[in-house]
Amino acid sequence: MIALRGVRGLRVDQVAREAEASTALIYYHFKNRQGLLAAVVEFVSERAFGYADAPGGRTARDRVIDQLQLEFQDTDAVIENSAVWGELRAASVFDRELREVVREQTGRWVGDLEQAIANGQDEGSFAAAVIAEDTAVRLTALVEGLAPRWLSGLITTARVHELLETAVANELDA
Amino acid sequence: MIALRGVRGLRVDQVAREAEASTALIYYHFKNRQGLLAAVVEFVSERAFGYADAPGGRTARDRVIDQLQLEFQDTDAVIENSAVWGELRAASVFDRELREVVREQTGRWVGDLEQAIANGQDEGSFAAAVIAEDTAVRLTALVEGLAPRWLSGLITTARVHELLETAVANELDA
Repeated sequence: MIALRGVRGLRVDQVAREAEASTALIYYHFKNRQGLLAAVVEFVSERAFGYADAPGGRTARDRVIDQLQLEFQDTDAVIENSAVWGELRAASVFDRELREVVREQTGRWVGDLEQAIANGQDEGSFAAAVIAEDTAVRLTALVEGLAPRWLSGLITTARVHELLETAVANELDA
Repeated sequence: MIALRGVRGLRVDQVAREAEASTALIYYHFKNRQGLLAAVVEFVSERAFGYADAPGGRTARDRVIDQLQLEFQDTDAVIENSAVWGELRAASVFDRELREVVREQTGRWVGDLEQAIANGQDEGSFAAAVIAEDTAVRLTALVEGLAPRWLSGLITTARVHELLETAVANELDA
């Protein structure tokens, strides 16, 4: 429902109707609207770790590029995830409770990419002078900045992939 | 009102009350809620061109860094602008009319930065091989990706400035 219409005006009773459950059951499981949104953040974050987990057996450089590019795929799950994450990220600016969950998942994502970059440095694929954490913050922010343009059709999937590949080259190659 | 509480649930009658005007007058000027939001996009975009317009008389490289860093200042106008732009950018994913206005202002912003980069290339400050348009798309997307983290307090103004300065070096230095 968030992916289709945004988090603006999302109401728990509508969610209950869609889920064919009682409103009381939703409140029982998620406590309140914010509890429900926090569960949504965790759900999309978990799903993203699934589809953006790059296959092994290739160079660390390829895996870093994959990790970023796999956030932009023309599949329902990825488009839905991107839309939902963008909504909750934007809403978290105005919502302290939601902010905590978004902060946690952002930290997890940045940490994961930072590790992949550090692995590439160990392998000698990336410049040793690169500060892995800073680069991970920039590249994840770039993904988040490109996502709404991509979802709005301002920019194609192929173009996003090209922009990300050059970004990795600029950030990480010696 | 958008900067304080988001665009979620913003109602024209509340805007009218805040403006001490009649709802009819608001509709007369802006036609409908979307017309009002389009006017907000234009207002914040215009204001950003004011405060992010870097002073002349320095190198093109300094002006490019300034243009990006000036989007992150601890002043009410800049914080408000950033919050409102983030909200409308996010909302535009779900709203075709709003999307057109956001697309137009994004194009203007990207074009402005692209020109500053091209000027730097003419001056010999930046690598000639850089594709100014691609870099402008990436750097503006980076600003948009960092903004919600900054507004949420996940990242300080000084840290954003530092990340942007390195981004420019990575993107543009030979």
